[in-house]
This record gives sequence, structure tokens and C-alpha cells, in this order.
Amino acid sequence: MQLPGRSRLLLLLLLRAGGLRAGERSSSAMEEIATEKEAEESHRQDSVSLLTFILLLTLTILTIWLFKHRRVRFLHETGLAMIYGLIVGVILRYGSPSSSGHDKPFSCSQEDRPFTTLLVNVSGKFFEYTLKGEISPGKIHNVEQNDMLRKVTFDPEVFFNILLPPIIFHAGYSLKKRHFFRNLGSILAYAFLGTAVSCFIIGNLMYGVVKLMKLVGQLSDKFYYTDCLLFGAVISATDPVTVLAIFNDLHADVDLYALLFGESVLNDAVAIVLSSSIVAYQPTGENTHAFDAAAFFKSVGVFLGIFSGSFMMGAVTGVVTALISFLFTKLHCFPLLETALFFLMSWSTFLLAEACGFTGVVAVLFCGITQAHYTYNNLSVESRSRTKQLFEVLHFLAENFIFSYMGLALFTFQKHIFSPIFIIGAFIAIFLGRAAHIYPLSFFLNLGRRHKISWNFQHMMMFSGLRGAMAFALAIRDTATYSHQMMFSTTLLIVFFTVWIIGGGTTPMLSWLNIRVGVDPDQDPPPNSERGNRTKQESAWLFRLWYSFDHNYLKPILTHSGPPLTTTLPSCCGLLARCLTTPQVYDNQEQLREEDSDFILNDGDLTLTYGDTTITANGSSGSRTATTSLDGRKTKSSSEEALEHDLGMGDNEVTSRGTRLVFPLEDNA
Amino acid sequence: MQLPGRSRLLLLLLLRAGGLRAGERSSSAMEEIATEKEAEESHRQDSVSLLTFILLLTLTILTIWLFKHRRVRFLHETGLAMIYGLIVGVILRYGSPSSSGHDKPFSCSQEDRPFTTLLVNVSGKFFEYTLKGEISPGKIHNVEQNDMLRKVTFDPEVFFNILLPPIIFHAGYSLKKRHFFRNLGSILAYAFLGTAVSCFIIGNLMYGVVKLMKLVGQLSDKFYYTDCLLFGAVISATDPVTVLAIFNDLHADVDLYALLFGESVLNDAVAIVLSSSIVAYQPTGENTHAFDAAAFFKSVGVFLGIFSGSFMMGAVTGVVTALISFLFTKLHCFPLLETALFFLMSWSTFLLAEACGFTGVVAVLFCGITQAHYTYNNLSVESRSRTKQLFEVLHFLAENFIFSYMGLALFTFQKHIFSPIFIIGAFIAIFLGRAAHIYPLSFFLNLGRRHKISWNFQHMMMFSGLRGAMAFALAIRDTATYSHQMMFSTTLLIVFFTVWIIGGGTTPMLSWLNIRVGVDPDQDPPPNSERGNRTKQESAWLFRLWYSFDHNYLKPILTHSGPPLTTTLPSCCGLLARCLTTPQVYDNQEQLREEDSDFILNDGDLTLTYGDTTITANGSSGSRTATTSLDGRKTKSSSEEALEHDLGMGDNEVTSRGTRLVFPLEDNA
Repeated sequence: MQLPGRSRLLLLLLLRAGGLRAGERSSSAMEEIATEKEAEESHRQDSVSLLTFILLLTLTILTIWLFKHRRVRFLHETGLAMIYGLIVGVILRYGSPSSSGHDKPFSCSQEDRPFTTLLVNVSGKFFEYTLKGEISPGKIHNVEQNDMLRKVTFDPEVFFNILLPPIIFHAGYSLKKRHFFRNLGSILAYAFLGTAVSCFIIGNLMYGVVKLMKLVGQLSDKFYYTDCLLFGAVISATDPVTVLAIFNDLHADVDLYALLFGESVLNDAVAIVLSSSIVAYQPTGENTHAFDAAAFFKSVGVFLGIFSGSFMMGAVTGVVTALISFLFTKLHCFPLLETALFFLMSWSTFLLAEACGFTGVVAVLFCGITQAHYTYNNLSVESRSRTKQLFEVLHFLAENFIFSYMGLALFTFQKHIFSPIFIIGAFIAIFLGRAAHIYPLSFFLNLGRRHKISWNFQHMMMFSGLRGAMAFALAIRDTATYSHQMMFSTTLLIVFFTVWIIGGGTTPMLSWLNIRVGVDPDQDPPPNSERGNRTKQESAWLFRLWYSFDHNYLKPILTHSGPPLTTTLPSCCGLLARCLTTPQVYDNQEQLREEDSDFILNDGDLTLTYGDTTITANGSSGSRTATTSLDGRKTKSSSEEALEHDLGMGDNEVTSRGTRLVFPLEDNA
Repeated sequence: MQLPGRSRLLLLLLLRAGGLRAGERSSSAMEEIATEKEAEESHRQDSVSLLTFILLLTLTILTIWLFKHRRVRFLHETGLAMIYGLIVGVILRYGSPSSSGHDKPFSCSQEDRPFTTLLVNVSGKFFEYTLKGEISPGKIHNVEQNDMLRKVTFDPEVFFNILLPPIIFHAGYSLKKRHFFRNLGSILAYAFLGTAVSCFIIGNLMYGVVKLMKLVGQLSDKFYYTDCLLFGAVISATDPVTVLAIFNDLHADVDLYALLFGESVLNDAVAIVLSSSIVAYQPTGENTHAFDAAAFFKSVGVFLGIFSGSFMMGAVTGVVTALISFLFTKLHCFPLLETALFFLMSWSTFLLAEACGFTGVVAVLFCGITQAHYTYNNLSVESRSRTKQLFEVLHFLAENFIFSYMGLALFTFQKHIFSPIFIIGAFIAIFLGRAAHIYPLSFFLNLGRRHKISWNFQHMMMFSGLRGAMAFALAIRDTATYSHQMMFSTTLLIVFFTVWIIGGGTTPMLSWLNIRVGVDPDQDPPPNSERGNRTKQESAWLFRLWYSFDHNYLKPILTHSGPPLTTTLPSCCGLLARCLTTPQVYDNQEQLREEDSDFILNDGDLTLTYGDTTITANGSSGSRTATTSLDGRKTKSSSEEALEHDLGMGDNEVTSRGTRLVFPLEDNA
């Protein structure tokens, strides 16, 4: 039995059995012509509806250009896409004729379970039908409401399988490595602990709102505690795309940028896995919606399993790609082959993760990060710009598509439930959830950080809690029940509000909070905190171990950058080292250090001043893990050698803990 | 009623009604879990099968690299992709377990016409089913033969709606303009007249073979004359991708390259439209498979209508894109927006053509040519390389995907009918058809051409009649009847044979035929023919009119290249001219002439020596139209001015005939 279940890969609907068309031609000519005409008509409608979206995007692009040209900053391209979507949605909703009438459903009783395939005998000919899904008895009569509205409604899985992967991959691939790693600890804390806190607080507040609604009599159907938590997870996925675009434009403070961007990228991953875990929470026995410890721990296990599995998938494919591009060095002469290979390998991460039951989108994120860290170093100059540009275009198109679809969905989605109390409650809840996530966490992080997160940064982060594509995709994924429909409608409104109002208010807010703009991203952070030039003994040793392992062994093995293995391996392994070291390494070192400053963790940054240990913990398992944040200053490259020799020993210990360190919460958060 | 008919846009299957999932959750938890597990299983299988293809492509890329590195030329990447496809096909066919068994079809009688949507009441719950297609009664029991084989079988429309468009667009966009236009007349003659001749000859020969098979008793089902003609159309689409790759590698003669490439690009378009027209040939009355003049003329009308309609769609979207990029000049600062716009507009051509009932693939071809001719001039330098690279990657992936799918299909397609007589007959027929197309046409063309098509060129063209992606896609489009299944199997074998044997024999053939290699594509053609420097009075006036109109009015209006309108328009229109002329035109002229020599018809080439009028005619309507071939030599740019002033008058007449001239057969071939 094949329900259009949660994880159905829509892209693969394309993989349809072509072998089932036999006999199609054996009917009489007249009926065949009529049939074909209808098929053509349907095909034409499909084309028209896709054309609608393309024209929407074209309009958006032209208007964006106008805005960029005039330096308009109060409305971002995504906000614009939503407005155009809204307009077209209104036109489709009120302008198009209702049902064409020829698709009347036919009922036929059957006592068994439903089959995937149904053969129907119509005047001697057999027709094959496939199961599409179950319909609640009350909805039977408005199933075929409006052809055009149906045509412009996508299956929610399209978002997860086609539109989100390029967006998320691009985010991972374009993480500004240096600033990201400098603030890694804080970012991980915000993403994991913060998202969990936010989810839990919003969930509980919303449960209060739901109780209130029941008291007032505003709730007509079931709304469980797990639904509230799911809403918390869905709405905790922040997407400050608007804010970051303005940051980019104005060259706002790079550390704040790294914190916001890093948090939003990772918290998308956390939110996806968190919502899957909440859905997996299915207490057994009679009290299906009360607390059940076994089910709770199962959920936690699901979270850990999916997250670490997806992380591993992404990292492994990234490393394999790096190895291939490392071994097939002569691919440099054929940038087309290189780019195609890179694209295929990255896509296969997604499919591999999905095939293994993990989350493709999360795997793709970590694949992107790994590709940027290792593979990027092995690509030819042309392939570097090709891959960046390819994913940039895909990301741009997918993002604007999603946002214009959101605008459209406000009018074309046919099962909206707008409940004023729920909506107001949700706005208050996300505000409180964001506050309870940013301020306390920043306080704790500041205890450990040398370069403190100042009050204006905290306010800016609080302000930048926009919701976007991920929240929408998670909310639309399941709109089967009353509670989920209400959650979807509310999410849509929250996205609209935050993108338009907060997005528009970013520039005034930046100046009001006195946040530096016009910063050169390659410059040092400002010496506005009382940072001393402490020695490396104070830095977090775990991170240093990972870093030196990566720098001394992984990078030389996987890429043409980094120091030659011959200098990093102990002398007893000299032969092995010489086998693994390519001549390019010796030549390329200097050149690479300059070229990739945006993309590759500039080695010099991390050597002397690590500072700043922070406390990070997961929200659900209750156990706490110490992890590290680094906030180093750019020091002279000459200091590398010292660190390398200093930390040359102890690589056995690091091997087992190294991978864990960059994302230390992969299996216990 | 929605049959998966010929023109069903599969891409748009994605556009599924998301509004039909209500009630899915109201069933009991146990059954739901079972259902979801099965859905997940199916999703996993989908991922695995797509992964298979991606791994195939990855392997192909790595082997190609090895081949390119070692300069192996006997096997092209497409041939390689087919071999890998074959291997995986064998594994899937004989290595995978057969049907999983849980999808038993259910029969239910109904006396009316089949509905699109079926509601089935299963123990009180309603499930929705959608119509998939008709099944011949004999096939009911092997519908669900093998899950894995079904999963790797794509709907044929995927080729037309997803894979072919980027291939064809790229072909149009990368036509080497100068050499293409220089040989335009010959190319049009080969593509239109040649394809029609080839189709007709192959069709008739195959009808003879079919008669023979009936006599010998080798034919067990119906095989009509129209089926034979359809086979002729399908197999007439040449695709010398292998040969051209070697030409590119060895820098073989540019005119021969232009002739082969131009012919194959245009004849794909002709073959598609031709096969649609043959399918549209449906005689009324009793004698459904005898000749019917009305139906014949209807077919001719369909051909003309579809071809000219698709051509217009492509040209119009190209011109609109050129206008947009012309007006929004400041888009130059945002190459991402420019590239995205270019991509969306080109895609919308396809959808627009499909929505209007024309052929998207053909429209995309002409859109590509127009984009290269006009829009390309308006793009920023970065966008030029971005668009080229984007479509290059898409083309590369799509092409290799199709070829590896072909290899796979030999084993996974479950309805092969291999008839030795038919196959041998087909090989002889395509040989004779190619010969009857190349040699007589070349003879007639040489009567008019100054720069004769020499014997070794003719032999090479004869030899390069490979069949590839288009023939396969056309053949797999309809495999419902016995005759079509036999045609499909035969086409597959022909593609294999031609790609492997002919592709491998190209390099020996080139040296055996003494064809020049190592030619600089920007050089003049060799003075090996007795060309004089005739005056322009002898050149074909129709073409000159079109050329000067394009050069003096269209190019200045649509692009930033070409002469300023102020110099080309009569003085009475001075004001208008000044409004339409941007300052860039004055600056950009010199620069553009050098940059775009590959892409843009170099203006200097066409001015003085046009020579060579050829006779071209359509194959079906019987009327003949004179058209022109140009075979000019590169002369000094200073001669432009003279021609411009000489041909400055008479632009009214040209407006109405101008567009016709470049593809003079658009509406009567």
C-alpha cells in the first residue's frame, strides 16, 4: 500500500512504470481522440500553471533589479516574491472558474484493505488506478473544487526533495569559514540548545493558548500537547535571509553575521530533526497523548540517530568527493567534468541519506560544509567559480520560488483555519521563545567568551528571528488534521509578518543599535573587548587537537593544501608520507592561502589565541557536554609551525574524538 | 479523463493536489504505522534507483576523464555511458528479486466510461485513486512483475520535458554562428528535404520488409504503413554527437562541422514535428489505414502549423529576452539576476509552446538560436560565461543520462520484440535512406554552391549518420502496440551500433578520407574551390535584404551591438533613432566584434561575396521555394558601410519576409 506518506520522494514520481501502457491504442478511434484531447488539456493547464510561477519569478527579478539599482532596502526580494505571489493568488482564487465538472468521483465498495493498484473494468476495457490517499468522509464533495487551484498546489514533498536541498547546500557551501569557526561554540549553543529551548517554550505557551481556546469554546477539534510541541519545532527554524542580505549590503559586523548565519543554517537542521522526533513520539497503550517515558526516550534516540546519521552521510560523501578530486588531479583540465562530478556527488548525498532513512536536507548541509572545507581546495580555479555560480543560481531560483509560493498559498490553499486567539498567542510565544533563547544563552556564553556578545548584538539577534522557507516547508508537510491546518495558517502569517516588518526594519534597527557597518570581512574583529594575548595553554585543548589533526593529517591527505605530510608525520612513517604527498602540495601552499580566504578556514587564525570555552548542552536528553568556542585573532602564519610541532603527538586519541568536536553534539544533543 | 497521453508533461506531475490528504490520520495507529512503513520503503527504493543512475554517471565521468587524459578516441563518453548502463541493466534484470507480491490488483466492474478520480470505500474509510491508463486484458497478470525494474523505468515524457530541452537549447545556443550562416542554405536543405526524403525512403523500404515478414510468417500482429513511416521519421533524427566531439578534438574542417552540426540540430526538430504529423494522420471512414487525401493534407497542415508555431514561440521569447536585457542594462551589475532571468525566460519558451499546443523542444531550439544571436550581445561578460557554463553542465548531465538509460533499457524494458528480419531490414534501410539523402542533395546543392561539397565531405556526412538521444526518445514515446515495440527495440540496436562502431571509426575515417584536421575555426575556408570575387549583384538578394534588415534595424534595436540607428535610419526618423539608440552602441561596437566571433555572425563575413544560390524544397507539400545559401569570405569590415547604404531602402518589404528567410521553410516545408 502506497500512501503519499511523509517521506515520499516526489522527484521520483518521475520514475513511473513506463511498462503499463499496453493496449492503450486498442480502443475505438473516436473515444481515443476524446481521451487524448483531455490529456492534452490537462497537460496544457500544467504548463500554464508552471508558466505562472516563472512569470512571477521573472517579475520579481526585474523588480529586485529596480530595487537594487535604487538601493531600496525596506523590502527584500523574498518579501517582494511573496507580494507578487499574493496578488496572483487572489487572481487565481477569485478570478478562475470553479470545477470543470467532468471529474466526478465514483464510489465502489470493498471490504478489505485498500490496494495500491486498482484495475477497473469499464465496458470490457481495463483501466489502472493508483492509490492517492485517504479522504475524510466529510470532504468527499469538495475534493474536486477548482481545477486551477489544484494545479498550482504542489505536493509538500517537493519542498524537501527539490527546492530545499539546493538552498541548504548553498548555505553550507558558502559559510564564511573563518568567522564561522571562530564563533563555532556559540553557534552550536544557539543552534542546538537555543532551538530546543525555543521549541519547548513555544510548545508550552501554545498549549496554554490551546487550553484557553477550549475554555472560550474557540476550538472545535482535538489539539494535543505533541501538536503544540511540533508547532514549537516548526516555528523555531529561523531564516534571517532578509537581515543577512542587508548585512551583506552594508558590510555589517562580521562576527554578528557569522553568529546569525551559522545559527540559522544549523537550526534549520535541528528543527527538521526535532520535528521528526516529535512525530516519532508515539506512546503505546491507552493514554496515547499523555507522557510516556519509553516513547520520550525513543524520540530522543530518533533525534540522535537521524542527526548523527545525516551528519555522517554528508561528511562521508564530502570526504569521498574530496578524495576523488584529489586522486584524479588531471580533472583540472576538464572543468565541465569536475563540476558535473561535484554536482552529482553532492546530490547523491541527499539520495543516500534518504535511502538510508536519514534526513537528506541535513546531510546536504554537512556535505556542503565538507565540500567547502576539503573538496574546494582540490578544484581548479574555473571549477571553483563554476560550482559556486551553479549553486548560487539554483539557490536563488529555489528561494524565490518558495517565497512566491508562500504568497500564493495564502489564497490557493483550501483548508486555512485562522484562529485569532491562536495567532496572537503564537506571535507572543515566538517573541518570548526567542527572548528566552537569546538572552540567557548569551549570558552563559559571555561567561566563557573572551570577545563578549554585547547587548546590541543580543538585541539584533533577538530582532532577527525571522521565519522563512524552512518553517513553511515543515508546516505544509502535514496538513491533514485540524490542528496542523491551524498551525500552517499561523506559520504562514508569521512568515509574512516577520519578512515584511522585521525585514523592512533591519536598516533602522542597525543604526539604532549602533552596530558597525562597512566592515572589511577580512579584517580583525575590533578590539572593543578586553582581550589579552593569552598563550595557547589557556585555549580549549579539545578543539586544538581536532584542529591540528585536521590541519596536519586530513587536509594533506584529502586536499592539495595544508603542510606536506612528510613534515607532519613522525619520521618512522616517512615512506608512507612520501607516497601520500603529491608534489603540488609543496607548490600550492602559498598560493592557496591567499585565494581561499573567504572559503577556507585560514590556518593562521586559529593558532595562538583560542580562548573562550563555552558550555553547550542538548535540550532533551538532559546531559551536558562541554564544547569549545574559538574566537582567535589573525596572527602571523609563521606561528603555524610551532603549533604543528607542539601538537604533533596524541593523534590516536584525536582520531576517535576529532570528528565529534566540530559538531560535538551530533550524537547526544 | 486523464490518460498518460502522449503530451503529458511529467515534470508537472509534481504539481499534485496537496489538498487531498484530509483524514489520513484518522485511522488507527497500528494500520497507520504499517502504511507509513510501506511508503517509506517505496521512497527508499526510489532513492536507490536514482542513486544507481547517479553512480553510473559518476563512473562515466571518471572513465571519460581517463580516456581524455590518455587521448583515447575509439570510444566516446556516450558510448561509455551506454556500456555502463548495459552492465547495470544486466545486474538489475538478473540480480534483483522479482515482485514483492503485496500489490495485487483488484478488479471492480463498472459500466460507464472510466473516471479520472475514483473513491473507494474500504471498511468505512474513503481512499482516492487516480487513473493511470488502460491495460490490455492479456497483460493484467504481469503488470507488477518486478518492483526494481519498474522503479528504474521512467515515463517516456521525462525525456521530452526534462532531459531533451537542455540538450537542444544548448545545441542552439552554441551553434557556431558564422559557419552556420555561411552554410545555411545547404543545412536547411539537408535538414528539411533530406529528412523528409530519408523518412519516406526508410518508411517504404520498411513496409517492404514488413510485407516480407508477413509472407514468411514472422509477423504476429498488425503493422501498418503509417507505422513504417513513423519509424522512418523516428530513425531519421541523426545525432552525430560522437563524430562532432572528435571533430572538435581534432579541429577538423569547420565547414564540414557546420554542415553536420547544423543538419543534426535542425533535423531533430524536423523529425519531432514529422512524427507528430504522421501520428496525426488519421483517415476517417472505413479504410482507416489506406491513403486518404484529406487526412494527408491535414497531416501536412499539422506539420506546417506546429513547426511554424514552435519557431515563432522560440523566436518571440528570444526577442523578448533580448529586449528585457536591452532595456534593463543595469542588470549587468547583477550577473546572478541576469543569469536567472535568462534561464527562466528560456524555460518559459518551452512551457509557452507546450501550453499553446506546439512542440516545446523545437521552440527551445529556436529560442537558443535567437538568444545567441541577440540576447547574448546584451549580457555582461560574466553572465555570458555563466549562461554558457550553466547550459553546458545541464546538457552534459542530460545527455549522459539518456545514453546510460539507453544501455539500461536494453535489459530493463520488459516488452522488447527483436525480429531479425526487421532489424536487418532497418539497418539496410537507414543506410540506403542516408545515401539517398546525402548524395543526390549534395549534387543539387553543388550546382548552386560556389564552395562545393567535395566527395570526401559527402562520404563523411554519409558515414556520420549516427542515431542518438532524439531517435531513442521518439521511439520510446509510444510503445503501446506490437509494431511500436518492435520499432523501439530496433531503434535501440541501431543507436548502439552506430554510436559504438561509427563513433569508434571516426578517426580512421577522417584520415582515410583525407579531411583536414587542425584547422583554426576563425580562419578563412581553404581556397580549394574555384571561387572568384564576384560582385554583390550576383548574390541572393532575398538573403541580403534579410541580413541588412537584421543588421541595420533588429540588432540595433534589440542589442547593444550593430551600427547606431542614427546612421541606418533615414534622416526623417532622426528623433526616433536617437531615442532608440543607447550610448553604449557607439562604444561597444569595436569591442563586440572581437569578443563574440564564435557566437555572433561576424558582420564582415557576409558583405561582399554571397554567391551560391541553392534550391530547397519541402518534402510533403510539393511546392518549391527558392532559398539562399551563403558561403561568403571574410572581408574587411569597411565594406559594411557600402552595403548598408546600398540596401538601406525597401525595409517595408523586408519586414514581412525577413523572418521567413533565415528559416524559409518554416511554413511550407
